[in-house]
Amino acid sequence: MKYIQSSKNPVVKQWKKLLTKKGREQSLTYIVEGFHLVEEALKQDDTVIELILVEGVEMPNKWNSDGIEMIQVSEEVGKALADTETTQGVFAVCRQKDSEAINESKTFLLLDGLQDPGNIGTIIRTAEASGIDAIVLGKGTVDLYNPKVLRSAQGSHFHLPIIKGDLSEIIPVLKEKGIPVYGTALENGKEYTTVKPQDSYALIVGNEGSGVSGEILSLTDQILYITIYGKSESLNVAIAAGILLYYFKNGQ
Amino acid sequence: MKYIQSSKNPVVKQWKKLLTKKGREQSLTYIVEGFHLVEEALKQDDTVIELILVEGVEMPNKWNSDGIEMIQVSEEVGKALADTETTQGVFAVCRQKDSEAINESKTFLLLDGLQDPGNIGTIIRTAEASGIDAIVLGKGTVDLYNPKVLRSAQGSHFHLPIIKGDLSEIIPVLKEKGIPVYGTALENGKEYTTVKPQDSYALIVGNEGSGVSGEILSLTDQILYITIYGKSESLNVAIAAGILLYYFKNGQ
Repeated sequence: MKYIQSSKNPVVKQWKKLLTKKGREQSLTYIVEGFHLVEEALKQDDTVIELILVEGVEMPNKWNSDGIEMIQVSEEVGKALADTETTQGVFAVCRQKDSEAINESKTFLLLDGLQDPGNIGTIIRTAEASGIDAIVLGKGTVDLYNPKVLRSAQGSHFHLPIIKGDLSEIIPVLKEKGIPVYGTALENGKEYTTVKPQDSYALIVGNEGSGVSGEILSLTDQILYITIYGKSESLNVAIAAGILLYYFKNGQ
Repeated sequence: MKYIQSSKNPVVKQWKKLLTKKGREQSLTYIVEGFHLVEEALKQDDTVIELILVEGVEMPNKWNSDGIEMIQVSEEVGKALADTETTQGVFAVCRQKDSEAINESKTFLLLDGLQDPGNIGTIIRTAEASGIDAIVLGKGTVDLYNPKVLRSAQGSHFHLPIIKGDLSEIIPVLKEKGIPVYGTALENGKEYTTVKPQDSYALIVGNEGSGVSGEILSLTDQILYITIYGKSESLNVAIAAGILLYYFKNGQ
C-alpha cells in the first residue's frame, strides 16, 4: 500500500483542493470522511476513486475495496484533510455523480438560497427518508459536496438525484407538467393542513433568515405556512421541511 | 456606567464561571449573548440582573433597562465571555427561573439523555412553537443554560416551563393522571399516524445515538415510530420531534 508521510506531498495538495468548492468543481470529485460515509460511498457503483487511511486505522473486513486504490497516510496528513477536530482517520475521494435524469420524478424538494451546511444536510437526509424523488439546489444554496453538508446528510445524498438549477426556470417546467408547486413563507399563504396531500408536488423552502425569495414565491401555485402556536417567531427551516414533507407523505 | 478593562478583573472571573454548568448551578444565574436573546431576556419580568456591553456597542433605544445594572467592558472581556467567534458584544446575566408549577399542563415533551446542545435548543424552540405546555429534561440531558442550547432555542426557553426531572418518576405520575405517554423508537411500536391525536399527552424523544432508553420505553403506554420511506437509517431527533409534535397538534 502506498504511504504518504508529509502534508506537503503533491498528492495531498490535490486532495486539499477538494476542501474548496472551486477545487471540487474543477475535478468533479469530492472527499467524504468517517466510517459511516466511506462505507456508504463504497456501496455505490463507480463512486470511490481512492481510499485514504491514517496509519493505525483498520479498514473493516466487510468493506469491499476491489479495484479501489488504497493509500495510507500519516496523522499529519489525516489532520490536513479532516473537517472535524476528532477525525476517524478514514476518507474516500469520490466521483461527483452526473446529474441524473429527474424527468420521471413526481415529488420534488427545491432549496432557495439555503446557507447553513448543517441545515442543508439535515434537509437532504429528511427528504430522502420521507421518500422525495429529487432535490433541486437553487442558486445561492451552499454546495452539496461541502464536508459539513455531507456529514449532516449522513450518506443520504447517494440515494436520490440532487441537481443544481435555476429555480425560476425549473418551476415553470414543473407547472407545465401539472405538478403543483408550493412555496413556504411566514404569511400570505394557507395553513399547510388545508392543502390535501397529492401524489405529485414540488415544495420550496428558503434561506434561514429571509425565507424563499419574493421572485420565487410569485412563481408558485400556492404559498403555505405552518402555524406558530407559541411565541417563537419561526421554526428552523429543516424542522419546517420535515413537518411539511411528512404531512405531504402521510396526510393527516 | 461602570467600565471593566481586564479579563482578569474578579467580576469577569465570576461571569466566566457561568460558562460552566457547575458555576451556573452554584449561582442559579446564567449568561445570554447577542441582541435577540438579550432583548427577549429584557422582556421577561425579574430576569436580567446585569447588562454587559462591549465598548462601541450601542444599546437599542427600544430596550427597557430600568433597574438593571449596566456595565461596559473592553473587547478583551467580550471575547472572554463569548461563546461564538463573532460575538455581537452584548450579554445579559439572568436569573434562572424557579421550576414553575406544571400541574396544570396537558401536553408534555420529555427528553431522555439528549447530548447535542443544538438539537436540544431546536427541540425547545419547536416544542414551544407547536404549543407544548411543558418540557422535562431527563437525567443525562445537556443543561438548559448551556450557551449553545440557549442560542438554538432562540429565546423560546423564556416562554414555557422547562424542568429537570427523573423521567422514571415523572412518567407514572402522568399516567396516573390519565395522560397517555408515548415513547419513540425505530421499531417495536406503532406508526405515529395510527394514533389519534389527543388534547393531552406526553411525548418522549431520546438520545441521538441510542434513542429513548429501554427502561423508559418500558414505562410508556405506547411506542411510536416514523416510517422511513427512503434508505436513511433514521431521522435527526429534532426533525422527528417536529413531525410528531405538529401531528399531535393538528391531527384530524
